[in-house]
Amino acid sequence: MSWNTFGRILRFTTWGESHGPALGAVLDGCPPGLGLSEEDIQPFLDARRPGQSKFTTQRKEPDQVRILSGVFEGKTTGTPISLMIENVDQRSKDYSDVAKAYRPGHADYAYDAKYGFRDYRGGGRSSARETAARVAAGAVARLAMPEVTVTAYVSQIGHDEIDRSQIDFAEIANNPFFCPDPAAAKRWETLVDTARKAGSSLGAVVECVATGVPAGWGAPVYAKLDADLAAGMMSINAVKGVEIGDGFGAARLSGEQNADAMRSGENGPEFEANHAGGIAGGISTGQPVVCRVAFKPTSSILTPVDTIGRDGENTQIMTKGRHDPCVGIRGAPVVEAMMALVLADHKMLHRAQCG
Amino acid sequence: MSWNTFGRILRFTTWGESHGPALGAVLDGCPPGLGLSEEDIQPFLDARRPGQSKFTTQRKEPDQVRILSGVFEGKTTGTPISLMIENVDQRSKDYSDVAKAYRPGHADYAYDAKYGFRDYRGGGRSSARETAARVAAGAVARLAMPEVTVTAYVSQIGHDEIDRSQIDFAEIANNPFFCPDPAAAKRWETLVDTARKAGSSLGAVVECVATGVPAGWGAPVYAKLDADLAAGMMSINAVKGVEIGDGFGAARLSGEQNADAMRSGENGPEFEANHAGGIAGGISTGQPVVCRVAFKPTSSILTPVDTIGRDGENTQIMTKGRHDPCVGIRGAPVVEAMMALVLADHKMLHRAQCG
Amino acid sequence: MSWNTFGRILRFTTWGESHGPALGAVLDGCPPGLGLSEEDIQPFLDARRPGQSKFTTQRKEPDQVRILSGVFEGKTTGTPISLMIENVDQRSKDYSDVAKAYRPGHADYAYDAKYGFRDYRGGGRSSARETAARVAAGAVARLAMPEVTVTAYVSQIGHDEIDRSQIDFAEIANNPFFCPDPAAAKRWETLVDTARKAGSSLGAVVECVATGVPAGWGAPVYAKLDADLAAGMMSINAVKGVEIGDGFGAARLSGEQNADAMRSGENGPEFEANHAGGIAGGISTGQPVVCRVAFKPTSSILTPVDTIGRDGENTQIMTKGRHDPCVGIRGAPVVEAMMALVLADHKMLHRAQCG
Amino acid sequence: MSWNTFGRILRFTTWGESHGPALGAVLDGCPPGLGLSEEDIQPFLDARRPGQSKFTTQRKEPDQVRILSGVFEGKTTGTPISLMIENVDQRSKDYSDVAKAYRPGHADYAYDAKYGFRDYRGGGRSSARETAARVAAGAVARLAMPEVTVTAYVSQIGHDEIDRSQIDFAEIANNPFFCPDPAAAKRWETLVDTARKAGSSLGAVVECVATGVPAGWGAPVYAKLDADLAAGMMSINAVKGVEIGDGFGAARLSGEQNADAMRSGENGPEFEANHAGGIAGGISTGQPVVCRVAFKPTSSILTPVDTIGRDGENTQIMTKGRHDPCVGIRGAPVVEAMMALVLADHKMLHRAQCG
Repeated sequence: MSWNTFGRILRFTTWGESHGPALGAVLDGCPPGLGLSEEDIQPFLDARRPGQSKFTTQRKEPDQVRILSGVFEGKTTGTPISLMIENVDQRSKDYSDVAKAYRPGHADYAYDAKYGFRDYRGGGRSSARETAARVAAGAVARLAMPEVTVTAYVSQIGHDEIDRSQIDFAEIANNPFFCPDPAAAKRWETLVDTARKAGSSLGAVVECVATGVPAGWGAPVYAKLDADLAAGMMSINAVKGVEIGDGFGAARLSGEQNADAMRSGENGPEFEANHAGGIAGGISTGQPVVCRVAFKPTSSILTPVDTIGRDGENTQIMTKGRHDPCVGIRGAPVVEAMMALVLADHKMLHRAQCG
Repeated sequence: MSWNTFGRILRFTTWGESHGPALGAVLDGCPPGLGLSEEDIQPFLDARRPGQSKFTTQRKEPDQVRILSGVFEGKTTGTPISLMIENVDQRSKDYSDVAKAYRPGHADYAYDAKYGFRDYRGGGRSSARETAARVAAGAVARLAMPEVTVTAYVSQIGHDEIDRSQIDFAEIANNPFFCPDPAAAKRWETLVDTARKAGSSLGAVVECVATGVPAGWGAPVYAKLDADLAAGMMSINAVKGVEIGDGFGAARLSGEQNADAMRSGENGPEFEANHAGGIAGGISTGQPVVCRVAFKPTSSILTPVDTIGRDGENTQIMTKGRHDPCVGIRGAPVVEAMMALVLADHKMLHRAQCG
Repeated sequence: MSWNTFGRILRFTTWGESHGPALGAVLDGCPPGLGLSEEDIQPFLDARRPGQSKFTTQRKEPDQVRILSGVFEGKTTGTPISLMIENVDQRSKDYSDVAKAYRPGHADYAYDAKYGFRDYRGGGRSSARETAARVAAGAVARLAMPEVTVTAYVSQIGHDEIDRSQIDFAEIANNPFFCPDPAAAKRWETLVDTARKAGSSLGAVVECVATGVPAGWGAPVYAKLDADLAAGMMSINAVKGVEIGDGFGAARLSGEQNADAMRSGENGPEFEANHAGGIAGGISTGQPVVCRVAFKPTSSILTPVDTIGRDGENTQIMTKGRHDPCVGIRGAPVVEAMMALVLADHKMLHRAQCG
Repeated sequence: MSWNTFGRILRFTTWGESHGPALGAVLDGCPPGLGLSEEDIQPFLDARRPGQSKFTTQRKEPDQVRILSGVFEGKTTGTPISLMIENVDQRSKDYSDVAKAYRPGHADYAYDAKYGFRDYRGGGRSSARETAARVAAGAVARLAMPEVTVTAYVSQIGHDEIDRSQIDFAEIANNPFFCPDPAAAKRWETLVDTARKAGSSLGAVVECVATGVPAGWGAPVYAKLDADLAAGMMSINAVKGVEIGDGFGAARLSGEQNADAMRSGENGPEFEANHAGGIAGGISTGQPVVCRVAFKPTSSILTPVDTIGRDGENTQIMTKGRHDPCVGIRGAPVVEAMMALVLADHKMLHRAQCG
């Protein structure tokens, strides 16, 4: 977990900029013998792919993945899997505004302050296009962990939350919002479209649930499963908060309310609640692993905002061009991929120590 | 960042159990030439020390730190600094209850499921006594970063929040709750005491602010400053949520509301808001770095809770003995230490790459 | 330094197989602002490139490198530099022999034992083609360390060593053996050609010298400069031994003979000898860093050797096809690259801790 | 593997100086459930312990190890094992000579150049006392790998080598030289005693053999088993060279001579030779793993040597006090421990990836 590498055993390194020729991931440490082809990865990239509805950026990227190494005769060999996605729709626009002044909320100023210099085209390395590489890697991670199912969905856009009694995972793929509540999805059409037309943007919350995780994954005290999930989620563009289980809500509970009582069940222990989100002491308990992730509103807006230029002078900037009115929507497949990557990594880490 | 080690350049490894002879930290990679003695560390341990008021556990631990290596003639040598704290008040109580059945909310079941076996005395490795070692290491981290001031405080216990207009950092040390709002501190006396007497417990929120952090610390994309903060905070016992800046609140803002506009200032750029919590694209912006951390209520309560025994049979358990009615309170010095450790590490990481 | 990643601060990950579509390296943590284009890398790849004389394999690979990320307007941005080299001359030969039986000296059996499965085409991941990716990364490492000059040369082929009194670095590029002694180079033409024609092969020793390394790089005790050099060199295909300075020769010296006495010089200390190879206590002394690396003879030979098949049956195998009669020769640019990568990494690591 | 930490899964961190109050190791990632007490570790420390014959330093250290964490009811818990050894015989001698001038061959100058400052008492962190911590950790590593037997011995002191036809492992414990050839051990008494009386010192070679290692440990390409062995061995004080199998000798062989032919055996493949030292492509082959390690002569000698003082002035220094006339002798238990640590680590790494 240094620079652009994440993971302990199942490690991946991503590379590439928004407007470079390509981007990719090298996934290393994958178990050998898993059946793998581009077809196993592409559906996950397609889910994240931009330009599929008016509610996401209009940049048209096919996001076709190529496997350049690590697979032989249709199976993983245990050596690094190099995944590459070419950038196709790098529109030759005029970046002089962005080159000269810092867009508030973006990494522009921080990159310049750090490196003295930055690739300003589409945000360069700080662009959310980087997350395509994670999604590709995440698709492989799932194959290493067939016993686990990971599902992410958008539970809130702006102030509008789903009705939890109406959650139906089968609905997630039926709307452009990864929304498990059809009524909320309907409302969000107007909500997001209004923001889009106004040149504004919206924040969102993504929730992710993994079922099938056995008790015992995770390790004290700095390889805790929840600590790795927190790091992974917080590394996603625009994420500002992470919760496990009840999260900040747990701060308002009493000990009695928060206790996940246990009862003897036919197939091992059963829990009467899951305030803990499936993790205790940093180790999975066998319950569903539950994580919530807050996305800030897209920083690119059509409203002019006060800012300064590279030479320190006062100016204003507005971000023309293509962008997601709510970056959290396409965050759902990314959150899902990160959850899969963290869990598969911990499956292997657990096996290393405990056989 | 593996197992019990945290950090990239300034790395520390903690060891020890609640009822073992001692616990400690090895802090490695520290810059040479820093003035350091036990007196620089002890005040931070004293702030976290149990048994100082009726609002924390009555375990009496002097938590005296010894420096066993890495310092010569009062200065750090650049070699590993071994810090040891002896456990003194390991009361010889009867642990047969805990040995036989799992306390809900604790790591008991997860440890057994993972390792087939656990040190049940006081929670063993999963005890929050581990955090004493972090606090000791954090005191050294501060010395490596004299330009930065890190301050943590409790902003909420149960449902009761501080009045943000009344925050006065000078008040934090004047009450047993690390509370910057004297009126809230007064209210919390009753709140916590009531919970304590009822054998119940309360959750809390700790906030942490670092000033003096220059723009440029942190690195894309898996060594983001906020990703490391999230991992560090989530690794603290009982933590279930982490926010940077506006956190989940940002999900409800529009892009215009969330923009931290910039203006030219005498000493560099000035920001008109800090929704971002001082971090953009994973890199510090020069604004205060702001983090919020949610602690669940202490899982040890005097109310009997349904659970199962080691052999899977149904039973009940209540946790007698000494415990904090609100573990979040003593979490404040720990959050502060983790923030210091992450920032000092990133100061060094930045220097490595950018000179 | 896990799986296919090497380095602490300046980290690179290589990927690719001998007969896959491409191979590459992702170099991460590089300082920003270094001038870099393909032209800075290509000469080093050209030096290592196969098929340039009858003394190396006849596989014709142009080894053209492409920079896919991390460079903007001709300068490194501080983000990952993705380097890709396409495989062009994957001759469509018959691999059925290699698929069915294990070539002694190759990794065939070990890979099968480990993974249950292997890419047998040209050795797959265990092919020395992987070293092209290191050479590309090494070219960038040099740019991060302009004060240092790294030079590797072949000092011995089979039993025939160079005359050390005749070493002339300017000669290295004048013969196909990276030999600094023209008379030895002349002799080696016959030596290597005879082995080649006989279908046999030869071992070699490569020496590497880095000048300009200041005192102070390297760190106790598991980040010692010499420990990292040893790991880096031993990870090169066919390497079986590594020496720093006098190496095994030092085991035969007395303490008086081995002492590198010091005298006061105009520009700091001067040493009267360099038995230590420029490293004491794992830290550079300011003298030239000197390393020697032993390459075994190429395992691919035309003589049939006893072996077993995948089903355990006795058989024989001989390795037809293209190969280097002395793999150590083309090892020289690889050793040079690894030395550059280790040193640049330690330059940055030193800066992290000591400013 | 950073700073003072070694290992990938089974990681250990050592701390402590020659003349500090104590030294130790924190061993992390150990499998749970292994029977472990101080009695399992002490014999290995006793073998390395100084002051047991006139052929080693006269410093009298009992080297009593204490286990401070990670063991409960006689079994490892899977949490960090903290091992501490107190320094007892830190003779209050006059270090003014060493404080003022640099001892050639020691790390004195390099440490000062790096850190601007050093603990000069007995070499501080660069003292070979650090290796006691490795030996303690190595004893635990053996328990994690009961199928493997690791044996190290001294094969050469100065110019005098053992007769390989006379190797008898049972003899190693019967003489103060860890020598498997009784006749050589007899000769070495005179050899070492003569050097000792003359205030001189001798180099040595230590060989190490591990039997019982199954095929499949190690991983391409920067986690190669031999690369990790090379790093581990080169990190030992006074080591200047590492060979796997035939090492530098392999450079003088032809491909036919170097081939380890295979035949079908009753219990899997049998090899007709072991030039490779049990490792091919960085992965174990099932043959004995064989490593050779060169130790330079002890740098502390009674002969005055030219050197410079801290202010750069010319002077001379001789190293009075207690030292080993041949530091390689006590290197044997250290080499053995490092081999055990690397192998146990790779056993676990292999399990992580390949189940």
